[in-house]
Amino acid sequence: MNSIGSSIRMTSFGESHGKCIGVIVDGFPSGLKIGKQDVQKELDKRRPGQSSLTTSRQETDQVEFLSGIFKGYTTGAPICMLVWNQDRDSREYIKRRWTPRPGHADYPAHIKYGGYNDFRGGGRFSGRITASYVMAGALTKKLLKKTMNVEVIAHTKQIGPIVAETPETEDILRNKEQNLVRTGDLRVAPIMVEAIENASKEGDSLGGAVECFIRNLPAGIGEPVFNSFEGVLSNALFSIPAVKSVEFGLGKKLSMMKGSESNDSYIIRDEKITVKTNRGGGILGGISIGSLVFFTVNFKPTPSINKIQNTVDLNSFEETTIRVSGRHDPCIVPRAVPVVEAITSFLTADLSVQSGHIPRTLKESMSNDL
Amino acid sequence: MNSIGSSIRMTSFGESHGKCIGVIVDGFPSGLKIGKQDVQKELDKRRPGQSSLTTSRQETDQVEFLSGIFKGYTTGAPICMLVWNQDRDSREYIKRRWTPRPGHADYPAHIKYGGYNDFRGGGRFSGRITASYVMAGALTKKLLKKTMNVEVIAHTKQIGPIVAETPETEDILRNKEQNLVRTGDLRVAPIMVEAIENASKEGDSLGGAVECFIRNLPAGIGEPVFNSFEGVLSNALFSIPAVKSVEFGLGKKLSMMKGSESNDSYIIRDEKITVKTNRGGGILGGISIGSLVFFTVNFKPTPSINKIQNTVDLNSFEETTIRVSGRHDPCIVPRAVPVVEAITSFLTADLSVQSGHIPRTLKESMSNDL
Amino acid sequence: MNSIGSSIRMTSFGESHGKCIGVIVDGFPSGLKIGKQDVQKELDKRRPGQSSLTTSRQETDQVEFLSGIFKGYTTGAPICMLVWNQDRDSREYIKRRWTPRPGHADYPAHIKYGGYNDFRGGGRFSGRITASYVMAGALTKKLLKKTMNVEVIAHTKQIGPIVAETPETEDILRNKEQNLVRTGDLRVAPIMVEAIENASKEGDSLGGAVECFIRNLPAGIGEPVFNSFEGVLSNALFSIPAVKSVEFGLGKKLSMMKGSESNDSYIIRDEKITVKTNRGGGILGGISIGSLVFFTVNFKPTPSINKIQNTVDLNSFEETTIRVSGRHDPCIVPRAVPVVEAITSFLTADLSVQSGHIPRTLKESMSNDL
Amino acid sequence: MNSIGSSIRMTSFGESHGKCIGVIVDGFPSGLKIGKQDVQKELDKRRPGQSSLTTSRQETDQVEFLSGIFKGYTTGAPICMLVWNQDRDSREYIKRRWTPRPGHADYPAHIKYGGYNDFRGGGRFSGRITASYVMAGALTKKLLKKTMNVEVIAHTKQIGPIVAETPETEDILRNKEQNLVRTGDLRVAPIMVEAIENASKEGDSLGGAVECFIRNLPAGIGEPVFNSFEGVLSNALFSIPAVKSVEFGLGKKLSMMKGSESNDSYIIRDEKITVKTNRGGGILGGISIGSLVFFTVNFKPTPSINKIQNTVDLNSFEETTIRVSGRHDPCIVPRAVPVVEAITSFLTADLSVQSGHIPRTLKESMSNDL
Repeated sequence: MNSIGSSIRMTSFGESHGKCIGVIVDGFPSGLKIGKQDVQKELDKRRPGQSSLTTSRQETDQVEFLSGIFKGYTTGAPICMLVWNQDRDSREYIKRRWTPRPGHADYPAHIKYGGYNDFRGGGRFSGRITASYVMAGALTKKLLKKTMNVEVIAHTKQIGPIVAETPETEDILRNKEQNLVRTGDLRVAPIMVEAIENASKEGDSLGGAVECFIRNLPAGIGEPVFNSFEGVLSNALFSIPAVKSVEFGLGKKLSMMKGSESNDSYIIRDEKITVKTNRGGGILGGISIGSLVFFTVNFKPTPSINKIQNTVDLNSFEETTIRVSGRHDPCIVPRAVPVVEAITSFLTADLSVQSGHIPRTLKESMSNDL
Repeated sequence: MNSIGSSIRMTSFGESHGKCIGVIVDGFPSGLKIGKQDVQKELDKRRPGQSSLTTSRQETDQVEFLSGIFKGYTTGAPICMLVWNQDRDSREYIKRRWTPRPGHADYPAHIKYGGYNDFRGGGRFSGRITASYVMAGALTKKLLKKTMNVEVIAHTKQIGPIVAETPETEDILRNKEQNLVRTGDLRVAPIMVEAIENASKEGDSLGGAVECFIRNLPAGIGEPVFNSFEGVLSNALFSIPAVKSVEFGLGKKLSMMKGSESNDSYIIRDEKITVKTNRGGGILGGISIGSLVFFTVNFKPTPSINKIQNTVDLNSFEETTIRVSGRHDPCIVPRAVPVVEAITSFLTADLSVQSGHIPRTLKESMSNDL
Repeated sequence: MNSIGSSIRMTSFGESHGKCIGVIVDGFPSGLKIGKQDVQKELDKRRPGQSSLTTSRQETDQVEFLSGIFKGYTTGAPICMLVWNQDRDSREYIKRRWTPRPGHADYPAHIKYGGYNDFRGGGRFSGRITASYVMAGALTKKLLKKTMNVEVIAHTKQIGPIVAETPETEDILRNKEQNLVRTGDLRVAPIMVEAIENASKEGDSLGGAVECFIRNLPAGIGEPVFNSFEGVLSNALFSIPAVKSVEFGLGKKLSMMKGSESNDSYIIRDEKITVKTNRGGGILGGISIGSLVFFTVNFKPTPSINKIQNTVDLNSFEETTIRVSGRHDPCIVPRAVPVVEAITSFLTADLSVQSGHIPRTLKESMSNDL
Repeated sequence: MNSIGSSIRMTSFGESHGKCIGVIVDGFPSGLKIGKQDVQKELDKRRPGQSSLTTSRQETDQVEFLSGIFKGYTTGAPICMLVWNQDRDSREYIKRRWTPRPGHADYPAHIKYGGYNDFRGGGRFSGRITASYVMAGALTKKLLKKTMNVEVIAHTKQIGPIVAETPETEDILRNKEQNLVRTGDLRVAPIMVEAIENASKEGDSLGGAVECFIRNLPAGIGEPVFNSFEGVLSNALFSIPAVKSVEFGLGKKLSMMKGSESNDSYIIRDEKITVKTNRGGGILGGISIGSLVFFTVNFKPTPSINKIQNTVDLNSFEETTIRVSGRHDPCIVPRAVPVVEAITSFLTADLSVQSGHIPRTLKESMSNDL
């Protein structure tokens, strides 16, 4: 199904080369002031064609509100938002309709839907559908900030083999929109840019990693056992195309350590219980502990490459080759940064409503002019 | 909530030092022949006290069926199974009731439940609750084999810094129950055993990794977008205590590669479409592609260590220290192997019912004696 | 939440005086041929302004497909459909914004959403949102017919105190679109019309009942206990504004009978097991028995009446009066007939997918031109 | 599936002639004081063998807590409760195993589960499984009273053709446990008793109706559209065997009225907005309006009757006859009263948690002895 969330639920719809990409956000608290700009500023970070490193597909991705907002405030009714697709060129896709691209979902989608799926531009499996996550996430970003002062901050941690340092979240906030790859480490930014440009010239592609932080999250958020903070978040993060692993705290590195090296002991600072170190990423037993939450999302390289690859003709059932010469990002990671933030905001808000930290209606601004 | 699964749903209940650990499996197809031994053989691999490397808590963990099975067959009604807790020693936990153990869920659970949670032995946050997953998984393991010939095979890939080779799944099956750490690589097994023994002697602990394979899974299983195979599975895997990251296919390594190195091209073998290499782990766009599915689950070290650690007294609100001298595993990974298999079987079966690959009732064996 | 269904899920959005009324249908099987006309013909039966008995609001309610359909077939992706609102006149609603109309949801909605709800035309609580049910239902109506030969047939059973005879379903099909009140009993049709006209002249309104049949439904559909056929259906039917009771089979009358009068005994007809009588409505234990399913949905009178009524000013917190002079139907029942059919089709299809009677993809028509 | 509820979820398990009848309540707030007596007193009202009017099956139905309660308080973990079956006599059922009883679920269950269902005593379709609802309802009854002062009060409104007056809820409370049929109208109680006794002597059975009230429920409870208060409640009520219709407010009678007769106008009483009349039953648009909520649940007669009925042999596929001579209630209504209260309490509490009226943890009583 194309929905996620328990207390606040997002339902994504639309295809890469269909009419639009849209989303419905249901269960969203009433009374939050929302303007188009709140959503548009997030969409602008994700949209194609924003720099020399991204696909040349031109989409302005201007959000349109269809329901759920009245006089500038959320109403408690389902909020439908969409962007219309404008720059669709399906010729390449129709030409290679029967030859699935390696690394893309063409083949399993063909099997699952009996061949009826809209294959143009990858259809529902295109990275373009993450525009729906960004629209939904924009609402929850504002909700989290307003009601709990919670902020979600992601940046590019790695491009191919190049790994950034992790600065303070304040520095990430300042730095990441100052460079084309959206890293918080300005020192490696030009090296990352060059690596992407080189891959692009070779007709090749790169992967990488996004690191994400949730700050000011109080202790006690997250449901136990099967809806742990990590579980709920990872489920959602795997809905971003090309994500192949999710690591909480020091992640894989923790598995190499001893318990005496990995445990975070408790201390009191500023009359608050917190941890001295934070290797675990701020979550224990699936529940937030009131310290900085952080995790890393690893992306495989863009599967579209301008090289000859082996594939199979689904119609003639014979081996053949394919060269994917369409428009695509040589590295998706810089544009994935706002998507990871959106998904993270959304699920954090959902879990916060569930645990009673966000009310169902915000009372602050109700006045006679409503 | 303590439930997982859409078409087949497992609800876990019970606490480490409560009366029992149990599970309800609802939506399970009728007509599968199930005996106690089918479940018991899986529980035996997980139970404490099985070797010198595990906790000394003695639990025979004999499964009892309370409902849903009649004349040796599943009926389609909810199947309730449990094991009774026998060897409970809560003295340590009561003594240190107000001093949360670093790395455990004591502190966030205390906050979340207002102090009412059953803290003895970690309560619901104990590794002991994975017995409920194993019971549920045992049913689905048999169901997958019977209806689709699908098998789930996990083994220990890493203990602390020691990494095993990955043999063929057939060799893993043969080897893994032949050594105390349940690795498919017999060469490193004794080194792993020694590493755990050394950590134990030092009052310390180790983490590691479990690698898991799903074989014979046809193409087309897994729902798109928010219920991707990876997403659904990772959500469930994070419900195993101490899991900090999940990697599909080559996982984190993929993020360092170029697209031309990471893509798996399609070929035809034995009149079937398959991939030449399998770096992606057999899933694209959240849907199985009909090749071997594999992934790695990384565990942090057991947080219980016999060393002095800093913590806070929740009652007096002062800093203090704690030494966790209770019974625990110095490394949980060998006992986590059957748990990863159980969780994986369960969600694979759930997704297979959803996609219509497993029927709601098995007709094969219905006869007059029922 | 604004969603219903487990295997096929409908999410309704839009407000009476907002931009549009829309729906997303997710989980719908791929491969069903769907044209606009399939949906439009159902919308036309529901749309306002269709006769002298209905509201004078003019809406052409032309369906627009936004996603999920490609080359005339469903793709398995979420299907978004909507109708744009055109004839909105909110002046009345703004004038009486603080004086809730008796019998409408104005007051509880105001409380629930803290005053932020879009009150114009009743917003989300308007009968207009049933257009979303009709669009979703049109898809499932075709799906049921195509895959199972199942048909859902409703007609007007009662208008105010006037009760129709129940003819054979074949006669209902033939008769109901031949009269303005959509009853299968042509004899009472003019009396019903007159009753509505009289109520309208008096500034008053009428209620009534819709009777609904599901024919050709095989035995075994419906989940036990908490998702019984009756339970799932009644939950959905209560989402139609003004519905106050739902009766299966002879319903309330059964409660007056003796067991020997109410039981339906089993017989064999045409080599099929069936019931001799059908007082129970074709469902036992929440599961279909393979005979004609039927039930009755009772509607209260339209709460909008052109008479002075007592109410309260929510702003000044004083008692006051209101006269609802806007556009509305003096009796909603004739337009509710296609809505009951839509809701019933939708949930019947949902339960049929769940029980495996409808496949996830229809293979019949796949060809190279897709 | 055998679960119901969104924020608090009940999962029922067990069969009539299996080992036990049990329930898991998940998502229940932590910190509520619960003793066995809280549950037992409700079970005692439902248990068989309590009077001359009920089945002679002897079950003491002593509740046992398996999890989720610690030191007398709920912990926030899933609460598993059960009663063991003791007086099972399956001989009759085995004898007529292939001849489905008219009016019971034997036949559709046989079809749905391919013959594997536990047919003894009706298995999962027995009225006995309502013991699980009563256990779950007992918890929520106390929760509603403690946190919101909300009370759920049901009584017998009708037995066969005999209809009781509806006294004030205070009188119902006082009267209903003073007579064997649990009606609030002491005048008709002996007539109802006699009617049941007569039916029983004739080997026949009666139906009837339960009327239920929710008092002190504030305005704003209930979700719009597809999870309306009426919808959610009716879905749950249809899980009680023999329920064939549910009417809110005056129900079916409303459909005969004019709008000017059925609307409830708003007034101010004791500085609170309320309705002058209450024909609608206290719910508008699926949301509570802050007045007394009420509804009626209609039951068909017990299908088990000691008379010869026509049925079919499923094995030989021939017409035959059956006489159901086992133990059963000649009228289930008096024992259904606590069941209706339980179901109503449960869903009312669920919706109240959803809307934020009940917190996730009750803080009042936390002390060092926990």
